[in-house]
Amino acid sequence: MNNFEFYSPAHLVFGKGVENRVGEMLVGKCKKVLLHFGGGSVKRSGLYDRITASLEKAGIAYCVQGGVVPNPRLSLVYEGIDLCKKEGVDLILAVGGGSVIDSAKAIAMGVCYDGDVWDMYQTGKAIEKALPVVTVLTIPAAGSEASGDTVITNEEKQLKYGYGSNHLRPLMSFMNPELFYTLPENQVANGIADMMSHVFERYFTNTTHVELTDRLCEATLKTIMHNAHKVLDNPENYEAWCEIGFAGTVAHNGLVGCGRDQDWGCHNMEHELSAIYDVAHGAGLAVLTPAWMKYVYKDNIPMFVQFATQVMGVEGSFRQPEDIILEGIEKLRMFFLSIGQPATLSEMGIEEKDFELMAKKCTGAAFGAEHPVGGLKKLYWQDVLNIYKLANE
Amino acid sequence: MNNFEFYSPAHLVFGKGVENRVGEMLVGKCKKVLLHFGGGSVKRSGLYDRITASLEKAGIAYCVQGGVVPNPRLSLVYEGIDLCKKEGVDLILAVGGGSVIDSAKAIAMGVCYDGDVWDMYQTGKAIEKALPVVTVLTIPAAGSEASGDTVITNEEKQLKYGYGSNHLRPLMSFMNPELFYTLPENQVANGIADMMSHVFERYFTNTTHVELTDRLCEATLKTIMHNAHKVLDNPENYEAWCEIGFAGTVAHNGLVGCGRDQDWGCHNMEHELSAIYDVAHGAGLAVLTPAWMKYVYKDNIPMFVQFATQVMGVEGSFRQPEDIILEGIEKLRMFFLSIGQPATLSEMGIEEKDFELMAKKCTGAAFGAEHPVGGLKKLYWQDVLNIYKLANE
Repeated sequence: MNNFEFYSPAHLVFGKGVENRVGEMLVGKCKKVLLHFGGGSVKRSGLYDRITASLEKAGIAYCVQGGVVPNPRLSLVYEGIDLCKKEGVDLILAVGGGSVIDSAKAIAMGVCYDGDVWDMYQTGKAIEKALPVVTVLTIPAAGSEASGDTVITNEEKQLKYGYGSNHLRPLMSFMNPELFYTLPENQVANGIADMMSHVFERYFTNTTHVELTDRLCEATLKTIMHNAHKVLDNPENYEAWCEIGFAGTVAHNGLVGCGRDQDWGCHNMEHELSAIYDVAHGAGLAVLTPAWMKYVYKDNIPMFVQFATQVMGVEGSFRQPEDIILEGIEKLRMFFLSIGQPATLSEMGIEEKDFELMAKKCTGAAFGAEHPVGGLKKLYWQDVLNIYKLANE
Repeated sequence: MNNFEFYSPAHLVFGKGVENRVGEMLVGKCKKVLLHFGGGSVKRSGLYDRITASLEKAGIAYCVQGGVVPNPRLSLVYEGIDLCKKEGVDLILAVGGGSVIDSAKAIAMGVCYDGDVWDMYQTGKAIEKALPVVTVLTIPAAGSEASGDTVITNEEKQLKYGYGSNHLRPLMSFMNPELFYTLPENQVANGIADMMSHVFERYFTNTTHVELTDRLCEATLKTIMHNAHKVLDNPENYEAWCEIGFAGTVAHNGLVGCGRDQDWGCHNMEHELSAIYDVAHGAGLAVLTPAWMKYVYKDNIPMFVQFATQVMGVEGSFRQPEDIILEGIEKLRMFFLSIGQPATLSEMGIEEKDFELMAKKCTGAAFGAEHPVGGLKKLYWQDVLNIYKLANE
């Protein structure tokens, strides 16, 4: 096991009706919040009214900025920073899914930084502070409600970069699984793929003697897969949504990755897809992950045998480990198809002519300084290209 | 799943040599710390010198109070509170195991409270604040390094009471598994029984639809059992100690109990033993837990079938569920014996003549106001008495 730090301070408030407690829980923590959200659904559903009523009852002032889109944009972040400075906002309340929360985190650090907030995404420069972020989650997927991570798209430059800091970990997150009932099926499926990928990126490692986190990863993955069809078949299955929602947080609050080298190859490869094509992150991951597994498994046969048997439930002879592994990968691919994910990149509208450019952007080769991505196997741009091609078969 | 809150802000710093980072990590967080510890072993091992050197290098002043004993005592807590007030201490640095940390938490809240700190233990009264507590763990067992709980013995009154508050959750905890190499075998065995019990108290529940936490409990229990003999057979097995140490934190930071009614019957019954006899908490739990299981399993057959098959690995026909359950309980009992735990209460020196008094104190019947203990099955003093007797067979 590697040395590690685990720090997940977000106070999770979970269950029916918890959005009505936002105001009371924020008393003494802020004077004026920015209520940050996406489209009109939070208003149509009544969530907006419940939260603003709760803030008003608690005597907390607020101003409002909607309009966050999937693959959240830098231009809106700039507007949010200006608004917060003008209005004297001291806490960002993100109401939405990962995109809204990531956008809120960008604003939270931008308000406390004198330069251009894109600097952090571009250079990875450490921040000293940020405004506190509180979330009310409406889409379980990104795990951003407990993580210190944010991913922003610079639409001018066609770049999608991530950034992480403990200063960006939310102070508090409210999760009412009833809010997930009205999600469109494709968003549910994308969320499931995304949270599974957050575990996979930590699970697949060459670090040995990481037994507890191996088991925790497997527990989380099995729970997600076991409940995925339940929420897709019956969108008002509260108990199944509880499992999916809570698993989404556990998948990305850092716990299941403690003491392990991590991978993040698939996430890096996917970001290139959605930077150019604006496709759903989860769908890209669902297509890329089985292809990545096929490409890399020979580098760590025991890791993939464990995955196939302990996560995917493959039985068979350990004397043909590759058979077990390939069956496990195929079962995962079939699972993704069964929840409605596309089978290939071309099915997502991604054209083969762009593969090479995306591969070169992914590793930095396009910018003259290549840094391979991935942990279990280091991937150079040619590897990434091969995986994109495998993901198109 | 029940509504729940999960809040575990302790920043865990884990791995080789982390005790040397205490000073640098505390910069800006305090001016003067109380270094609180137990006996001379922290000095003999050099740990005391490494920590004070780290504090001095970081320019942090400190004063010192040793002398904490197992089942930590209220009288020392009072002395610590006085010392902190006199010295202007603003952070308690606990170097030790659960007893030292629990004692530190009592001091931390006592310094900020005008009355007698025993009030909280006696009445459960909520606190508004406490000094921050930071821990350097030397015994993995109590989980106190991440929990908000403290248990103190009022030696005058022969009472051992627990108290919990989010204000008592440590700010930071340092865990170097190398520090566990020199623990005596019985302390290792007691720690293992204690951390397993922290999971059991959460695992055994009548709450349904708690799949993720069921799996997380099982993952934690299996990891502890799988590594217990490794550390007992080879006290310098760093990797196995990493698993045990980290599992001890996960067992008690609140995660694996989220959304579930909890039990805590065995802990309540054990506290009566150690209040009178000053026996080791873990040993008491190891003796009581299988007896409790035998006494209550009929109230929730599916829960105990899951335990026997998923945790203890019992195979067999589900058509005789009681056979499976009894085999699981017996396997657990044999596991505790195999790590050196006693088989009966009398083996621990506890006399049958005291059973009734302890049972009546446990539920409050001795004080004229009975509150049954336990969650899966409510236990009145007669039940507790029956379990003490079963634990003596």
